[in-house]
Amino acid sequence: MIKKIILPCLLLSALVTSAQQNLVQYVKPIIGTSKMGHTYPGATVPFGSVQLSPETDTLSYEVNGKYNGDVYKYCAGYKYEDKTITGFSHTHFSGTGHSDLGDFLIMPTQGKLQLNPGTASDTKSGYRSAFSHANEVADAGYYKVKLDDDNITAELTSTTRVGMHQYTFPKSDQSHIILDLMAGIYNYEEKTVWTYVRVVNDTLVTGYRQTNGWARTRTVYFAMSFSKAFKNYGRKSYDAKQAYRGFWGKFNQEQNFPEIAGKKLKMFFDFDTQEGEKIKIKFALSPVSQENALQNMRAEISGWDFEKVKAQAQATWNKELNKIQVTTSNDNKINFYTALYHAFINPTTYTDINGEYKGLDQGIHKAEGFTNYTTFSLWDTYRALHPFFNIMQPSRSNDMVKSMLAHYDQSSLHMLPIWSHYANDNWCMSGYHSVSVISDAIIKGTYNGDANKALDACIATAKHRDYEGIGYYMDKGYIPAEKSGISVSNNLEYSYDDWSIAQLAKKLNRMDVYDEFIKRSNNWKNNYDSATGFMRPKLAD
Amino acid sequence: MIKKIILPCLLLSALVTSAQQNLVQYVKPIIGTSKMGHTYPGATVPFGSVQLSPETDTLSYEVNGKYNGDVYKYCAGYKYEDKTITGFSHTHFSGTGHSDLGDFLIMPTQGKLQLNPGTASDTKSGYRSAFSHANEVADAGYYKVKLDDDNITAELTSTTRVGMHQYTFPKSDQSHIILDLMAGIYNYEEKTVWTYVRVVNDTLVTGYRQTNGWARTRTVYFAMSFSKAFKNYGRKSYDAKQAYRGFWGKFNQEQNFPEIAGKKLKMFFDFDTQEGEKIKIKFALSPVSQENALQNMRAEISGWDFEKVKAQAQATWNKELNKIQVTTSNDNKINFYTALYHAFINPTTYTDINGEYKGLDQGIHKAEGFTNYTTFSLWDTYRALHPFFNIMQPSRSNDMVKSMLAHYDQSSLHMLPIWSHYANDNWCMSGYHSVSVISDAIIKGTYNGDANKALDACIATAKHRDYEGIGYYMDKGYIPAEKSGISVSNNLEYSYDDWSIAQLAKKLNRMDVYDEFIKRSNNWKNNYDSATGFMRPKLAD
Repeated sequence: MIKKIILPCLLLSALVTSAQQNLVQYVKPIIGTSKMGHTYPGATVPFGSVQLSPETDTLSYEVNGKYNGDVYKYCAGYKYEDKTITGFSHTHFSGTGHSDLGDFLIMPTQGKLQLNPGTASDTKSGYRSAFSHANEVADAGYYKVKLDDDNITAELTSTTRVGMHQYTFPKSDQSHIILDLMAGIYNYEEKTVWTYVRVVNDTLVTGYRQTNGWARTRTVYFAMSFSKAFKNYGRKSYDAKQAYRGFWGKFNQEQNFPEIAGKKLKMFFDFDTQEGEKIKIKFALSPVSQENALQNMRAEISGWDFEKVKAQAQATWNKELNKIQVTTSNDNKINFYTALYHAFINPTTYTDINGEYKGLDQGIHKAEGFTNYTTFSLWDTYRALHPFFNIMQPSRSNDMVKSMLAHYDQSSLHMLPIWSHYANDNWCMSGYHSVSVISDAIIKGTYNGDANKALDACIATAKHRDYEGIGYYMDKGYIPAEKSGISVSNNLEYSYDDWSIAQLAKKLNRMDVYDEFIKRSNNWKNNYDSATGFMRPKLAD
Repeated sequence: MIKKIILPCLLLSALVTSAQQNLVQYVKPIIGTSKMGHTYPGATVPFGSVQLSPETDTLSYEVNGKYNGDVYKYCAGYKYEDKTITGFSHTHFSGTGHSDLGDFLIMPTQGKLQLNPGTASDTKSGYRSAFSHANEVADAGYYKVKLDDDNITAELTSTTRVGMHQYTFPKSDQSHIILDLMAGIYNYEEKTVWTYVRVVNDTLVTGYRQTNGWARTRTVYFAMSFSKAFKNYGRKSYDAKQAYRGFWGKFNQEQNFPEIAGKKLKMFFDFDTQEGEKIKIKFALSPVSQENALQNMRAEISGWDFEKVKAQAQATWNKELNKIQVTTSNDNKINFYTALYHAFINPTTYTDINGEYKGLDQGIHKAEGFTNYTTFSLWDTYRALHPFFNIMQPSRSNDMVKSMLAHYDQSSLHMLPIWSHYANDNWCMSGYHSVSVISDAIIKGTYNGDANKALDACIATAKHRDYEGIGYYMDKGYIPAEKSGISVSNNLEYSYDDWSIAQLAKKLNRMDVYDEFIKRSNNWKNNYDSATGFMRPKLAD
């Protein structure tokens, strides 16, 4: 489906041809990486599970037990103003105002092995490297940068579930690839709950990383394949000493030991490299198992042709971008197609190639007949993004509603997602805006499932009395100001969401529901002060 | 198969009838619970996954960061000399000289809710209760005790994968059932890695408990069903405060909140009870998932008939015990059948009802055509128990060898089990005695798999040069004393194991292997000092 759109404000004219254009050229993923844009410049494909992108620093969420405000600058891992790169990790949020992820940081180095990132002011103190934007390319589905410290060129591309790295080394008998399993975004002392690594052979490593944080109970499994056998490998544990030691002391676990587990681990893999030798890595993710990660890898990238994977990623982007062809200035095209690119990053695919995913109940489920998605930051996206998807991504919109209803089915609270975050709801922000997305998709005809069941889920969510003042809202028509710091916001958001439910009920001819929710949708008036023309909080009496 | 055995040392005579006798009456599980016997008195079925048994204290492995020697007395959770019971947990080792487990401690109480166990000297200070052996019954498959503090009678029985509790309460509007997810055997500060609990409805709770310890990476899933709906429930978290808090603060997670996770958690469930009212619990385990635990529960205990489950458990024991019928005094029968009972507790079943289990690679596997077993404490059991199984439990012996070979296939070290401990090897004790068990089973015809493949696994394990001096042993014919604190033990054990491998190779007509290993089996002579007639350590030169 290609839409030819006239955007009068940009003085565009409709195209008369629907032939595919080269639109990837207008995508500049670097846009938004400065200051508080919270975008990332790395490689991903549309709605991909993998977001393989550089980190420019590694800040802790806490300093002396208190929130470190600077961490907010690194919601997406990369800050344009920074001069150093600490590595390339596989998961990133785009544009969020809180954060998590940054799983499986990989960094190529040479010379003396250093397993700590070091400081931005003295990059030689650790594995990080200086870089300059002059030596950086950030395209849709492709990222490249020269790591100045060790004269290594890093290139990244991706499929839906597999990141591909290509590192061009200098001649060295001390070339390393570091896998830092402690690094992460919004990191703190107890964030990494458990880590497991299994060196299957001299080119294959699998394992998982389990974290706490914005997603309370989250595990990501991986399979990591090298294009060249490492000559040596090892781990370093940063776990605090425990009174209990067990019997693993029989082994030297530091060097060439294939069975590794603990809370705080880093791995390294050593190589001899010739001048200009490329070492490639395929790094597959799964929410379910090491085996599924391996299956994802085998299904999505069969060989070692980096250029082919890159070309596929860019072709996929080009196809998506061509859904809207605009005629305007080059700068406007850059603005438009970069925004379209960002619009097609989230939500993210959350099913393995075999259809399995970990559900909200922490059990393994199979998505039958749909792709399951996560990363529903609904307070941010219900207004514009999902309605846009109903026009531009109707099939995905259908699957997103199915994903929300699967989430509901697995929720022990019997609620639709507020903020779907892997096998968790992270409960961020206000409203129950899934209902708006679902109503819109059903009314516009993009959802092909059981509409009445979907409405029931909306009603159950909207009547969850214990959640965020809903009980007061239902009983009094507003939330007393002394009961909530966001009593007005919630009232306004619930009123809008209830109006959405009412419209869906009308469509389904469930007029009792319509009557109830259209009445509720007027609750906003109870916080409206006609004297000032503003919304105002109101006490209980 | 019923064997009629003459045990001359007991002056027994062979029985002429093979009719089943009531032999369960001679089993006294309380034997061995005193001092350092390390047996447990609770309910289990032959080779069961569940060992539902009382704990008489809750000691930490560490005191002030140092090993607490007293913890060793509680390897099986119960010490006959103690006067109090802290609760009933679902997993126990029998007879081991190191420990772990004690998963999912349940305690019924009434009156004021107390979530800490309190002290033995002041049982009122916590949920524990005084008890006396006069009010205690410990039979095969059945355990009963009166909890004096709150006048509650506790009864326990079990199927292979499901423990069943029956608590008889007094009249009270403050009756409680506590689920302590922090309690454990060989417990220490960081032992519980993660805990997840989901209250599905007012009679069903599922979740998991993930621990570190003797088994480094271990997760046990559960499903817990109550015979009566609880009127109220809650959790208490003992997690240390973290700088990162997330957005769960929107909820009151302490009371009636169904989605619970953290490191240190206790749950409680409240009831009104009439005088003499029985509340029953079915508590199913799985190494794989909450869903599998539920499936195990549904498959093994369909209703709420405690007496029926008890009768089944005892019938199962009786059938196993009748494999040997002896004629001797009552005391000798008690000794004999209690020992036979203890012999048929370990190893333990480690497959769900659907055949799935978590393998050594932390992946989910399906045991095709066999029951997978764990708890192979081989240094303790290779000499007598496994040869005994080849006579008395040939089908299980076959499956145990298959379990060992599955372990080998999943081992990233490519080794047969040293001490198979759920999805881990805990590496305890010396030798590679799987090879002795496997050789014996093949030579005696109880193993029906690929014998040559099994021999290959034995050879690979015996040639694992990095393991416990095997390299020295292979190169020098002994292990230099300066390289190992147990150089002589290892030499002797390896020599014996190698002799076993040689016998298997001869049986399979692989004479090159026979020659190699029969030669290795003479290595013990290199530590033999003919002057003293003793074995002696020897330095490298």
